[in-house]
Amino acid sequence: MPQYKAPQRDMQFVLNDVLDSDAVYAGLRGYEEATSDLMTAIIEEGAKFAENVLSPLNQSGDEEGCRWSEAGVKTPAGFPEAYRQFVDNGWPALSAEPEFGGQGMPNLLGIAVNEMIGTANWSWLMYPGLSHGCIKTLEAHGSDEQKARYLPKLVAGEWTGTMCLTESQCGSDLGLLRTKAEPQADGSYAITGTKIFISAGDHDMAENIVHIVLARLPDAPEGTKGISLFVVPKFNVDEDGVAGERNAVRCASIEKKMGIKASATCVMNFDGARGYLIGEPHRGLNLMFTFMNTARIGTAIQGLAHAELSYQGALEYARERLAMRSLTGPKNPEGPADPIIVHPDVRRMLLTQKAFAEGSRAMLYYLAQLGDIVDRSDDVERVKAADDLMALLTPIAKAFVTEVGLEAANHGVQIYGGHGFIREWGMEQIVRDARIATLYEGTTGIQALDLIGRKVLGSGGKLLMGFTQLVDDFCQANADDADARYITPLAAYKDEWLEMSLQIGEKAMQNPDEAGAAAVDYLMYSGYVTLAYFWARMAVVARAKIAAGEDDTAFYDAKLMTASFYFDRLLPRAQAHRQALLSGAGNLMDMPEALFAV
Amino acid sequence: MPQYKAPQRDMQFVLNDVLDSDAVYAGLRGYEEATSDLMTAIIEEGAKFAENVLSPLNQSGDEEGCRWSEAGVKTPAGFPEAYRQFVDNGWPALSAEPEFGGQGMPNLLGIAVNEMIGTANWSWLMYPGLSHGCIKTLEAHGSDEQKARYLPKLVAGEWTGTMCLTESQCGSDLGLLRTKAEPQADGSYAITGTKIFISAGDHDMAENIVHIVLARLPDAPEGTKGISLFVVPKFNVDEDGVAGERNAVRCASIEKKMGIKASATCVMNFDGARGYLIGEPHRGLNLMFTFMNTARIGTAIQGLAHAELSYQGALEYARERLAMRSLTGPKNPEGPADPIIVHPDVRRMLLTQKAFAEGSRAMLYYLAQLGDIVDRSDDVERVKAADDLMALLTPIAKAFVTEVGLEAANHGVQIYGGHGFIREWGMEQIVRDARIATLYEGTTGIQALDLIGRKVLGSGGKLLMGFTQLVDDFCQANADDADARYITPLAAYKDEWLEMSLQIGEKAMQNPDEAGAAAVDYLMYSGYVTLAYFWARMAVVARAKIAAGEDDTAFYDAKLMTASFYFDRLLPRAQAHRQALLSGAGNLMDMPEALFAV
Repeated sequence: MPQYKAPQRDMQFVLNDVLDSDAVYAGLRGYEEATSDLMTAIIEEGAKFAENVLSPLNQSGDEEGCRWSEAGVKTPAGFPEAYRQFVDNGWPALSAEPEFGGQGMPNLLGIAVNEMIGTANWSWLMYPGLSHGCIKTLEAHGSDEQKARYLPKLVAGEWTGTMCLTESQCGSDLGLLRTKAEPQADGSYAITGTKIFISAGDHDMAENIVHIVLARLPDAPEGTKGISLFVVPKFNVDEDGVAGERNAVRCASIEKKMGIKASATCVMNFDGARGYLIGEPHRGLNLMFTFMNTARIGTAIQGLAHAELSYQGALEYARERLAMRSLTGPKNPEGPADPIIVHPDVRRMLLTQKAFAEGSRAMLYYLAQLGDIVDRSDDVERVKAADDLMALLTPIAKAFVTEVGLEAANHGVQIYGGHGFIREWGMEQIVRDARIATLYEGTTGIQALDLIGRKVLGSGGKLLMGFTQLVDDFCQANADDADARYITPLAAYKDEWLEMSLQIGEKAMQNPDEAGAAAVDYLMYSGYVTLAYFWARMAVVARAKIAAGEDDTAFYDAKLMTASFYFDRLLPRAQAHRQALLSGAGNLMDMPEALFAV
Repeated sequence: MPQYKAPQRDMQFVLNDVLDSDAVYAGLRGYEEATSDLMTAIIEEGAKFAENVLSPLNQSGDEEGCRWSEAGVKTPAGFPEAYRQFVDNGWPALSAEPEFGGQGMPNLLGIAVNEMIGTANWSWLMYPGLSHGCIKTLEAHGSDEQKARYLPKLVAGEWTGTMCLTESQCGSDLGLLRTKAEPQADGSYAITGTKIFISAGDHDMAENIVHIVLARLPDAPEGTKGISLFVVPKFNVDEDGVAGERNAVRCASIEKKMGIKASATCVMNFDGARGYLIGEPHRGLNLMFTFMNTARIGTAIQGLAHAELSYQGALEYARERLAMRSLTGPKNPEGPADPIIVHPDVRRMLLTQKAFAEGSRAMLYYLAQLGDIVDRSDDVERVKAADDLMALLTPIAKAFVTEVGLEAANHGVQIYGGHGFIREWGMEQIVRDARIATLYEGTTGIQALDLIGRKVLGSGGKLLMGFTQLVDDFCQANADDADARYITPLAAYKDEWLEMSLQIGEKAMQNPDEAGAAAVDYLMYSGYVTLAYFWARMAVVARAKIAAGEDDTAFYDAKLMTASFYFDRLLPRAQAHRQALLSGAGNLMDMPEALFAV
């Protein structure tokens, strides 16, 4: 298993040089103290924790997995101790509201720290990671009394949280959910039903677990408009926030999975468990949507994490493993063969991993910064613009980054040859862990429908035009630059993207299946173009740094070369997606169902 | 885990209607009795064995895995019994030479049976599968005495065989191997060294194991020209072919792997084991090359197998799982939601699996038939032409079919959503099992160098022109057909392929890295175009059948629709590969090694 080394140099490049965080956060309410110096110091501490505490538990956690018994779920050796350290050092509070003990740092910094933790050990991150959704739900929609009762312990990390949505008959289609909530005389509700795929549903790392549960009231309408939101603690909590008697919610079993085996994926039985309504009845799904963007960006981080980790492991091996000679003559004449990094195809795979990891980092940090602007800017127009950009780019980021992260993880195995298939080296674990990312928090197909249906066509193209205007401004501003190599194709793609969207929109007016038939190829096309924008931005900054005579030209040279690689060798894939989607819905929908099985 | 159902209808379509096997085999020496009736009957029997005996052991074998002890490797429950049945029914002898007890059936039939066995249970197939290489080596290069001593038991399946090539420091680059062979007074050799990744190196399914081992004689030149081939039995064999005392070869451990866990991947220690030279000294690698094509086609079958199995599992789920409504209105109005097969993107994934499985079947069966022509035709020119086609198409088939097989397996997981990640459903096992196929028997990168270096450029383009001439003849013969939808793009791609190859050749003359930098994209491009040829051939046959008023038009309709899907939605990917490879070697080779890690 590769020992993780946090790419702090690149993280700071994105934060400071590309996203100009000092200037941005100086102008955001309550974030004035989040200077680059402070953020750098926090990232350094986070890097130590990720590298020294969590990375060594990544492979052992996979081997050992979680164990279920009647008494509860036991996480792998070292997991609870690492969590204790995490709590003692105040990490859970990093980006939570100061009112309940949070440190009030920007979401961007939280994402950067999560990147490091998740790259070191994605399974481990799932425990505090799920708390985040629970905290955000209560912060946004809980009553004052609910906030006071649950948030301080959650923010401190003494308790963790979960999100209980899925049931065996419904994942993407929550309208089908059946869990019931019966009003009780004391104002609480008796929650009854079975939830599945509940990450961190039970474990031995914290003294209480606060479940956010979707359920139906007795008078609820059918479908998605009859779902309400409840808070259901594992141990009931009194007015002073002290956990008392056990509630009727239990982990019935844990799943055996392909990967993230150290993350407990629980079947949770609610057997008349005491719960409390959050917000208005029947508005549960709407309430959930308010922080769906940040949850999806949090999941997108997994694609970045596994691209980065796999790259680090593969690069080390490619520099050490000797096999065959370079086609242009020996590069290691004293040795029995050359290191495989001399071979063009090994470099193609390494650069693919690198381009996806670094490009995704820029994209996701940008999105996290947009989230901070939405939360804290006093400029209404700026908030609206940032919110629109997030709405458009979040499904792209979630689906595209996790898809290419999985691809990158597979390249890591491939670079190791047969050894990549052997568990000992740790590269195959990265593939197994990465595989979940395109499935949970909305599959790639669901993100694609969100993008093309709700966001692009649903806004009459406005959301897309908001982004392409940004791209256009950038291209104009750098039109005479030495970076025409990036700017020229980017500008062309931007025009093509708009035109193509118009075409699909026209076809979809006649036949809604045209949108569905185009969706995933459209999303992947959009992902490649969006990543091209971030690579172009990074290239422009890198060249400016070199021109300004800054030190560390090696870093900037590597950026420019990776940008060139991206434009030459990965961006052309967008054309294959374009051709596929322009072929229309007929080749998917004409085949009668029965003919699939003749 | 999907219960496998052999696609006999499609297998017969390829064998009889596309490849016209009755006419072909009637004209091949010794294969006159291999009529379509006989092959159909044998396939029916093979289907029963695969479906009823092997498919039920696929998931349990993965769960249980193999166990090592000093006494030897124990395979999962049911594996030895299934092997006994396989032997009792005479399957090992199917395509072996009659001289040693074989049934002398065409290689094509062997491939078809192996497809069924391997789709049902790829791990299990590895045991008899490795014997095949051992038998072919002895048949081709063993002395009469060696043949008499080993072949009857191997052909009968009473013993199994292995191929011992890889060592820890060398896989692709066998020139680095170190295992020694010291001549002994009695004419035998003492073999000393450690081999890794030896499939079926030890097990409890047969009474003896015959290892084919690559090793160096004391006077051997360095590199690939100093490697000799030896036969080393687990139990020494006397002149009458009776196994006696234990030889000094032992399984030191078995690997923990990502997949194919029921296949024992052994570290084999040779500690002065008694071995016998096969053929001339120092010619070991050349001797191995004689049947490398068939071994690679055998491995390519894995891509087909996992595309097919994943398709079967995903299709069943897509027809049963209910989620959301069709965008064009409810298709299952009585139910709470529509089956997910109504959604365009689910269909896109299913059709991708189907197009890869059925297209690969046509490609691989065609290659197997070419092998039979090479072996048994009396027409020297026909043999030469078939041999040339095999030389060109084998690396394409091995690498492309295993790559797209892995993609198809991943679509299977994706169609199941979160359930795809859960072991119980069996879909994630298919991905784990499929992952090895692009690594062993020559990685995709190695196949790609073989294709572009040895085959295309190495023949001055002649091998490629042999195939494009075939494509051209086919296009000409069907130029006025209703199939212009397939023929027109195929003809254009054929021209582009030739022209592109010329361009690469010219650049590679200046800089050999240009070939390496283009290699994998070139191979994938070639794979998409080659598959287009087979889909066009199937479409032409299907339309002719419909025109002739044959029954079962549903089958032929499905063929035509799948062909259209392939041309519309998958073939365009060739363009992305083309653009990437035409960008040249600079974007891969210019980056100094040190800059990969800044």
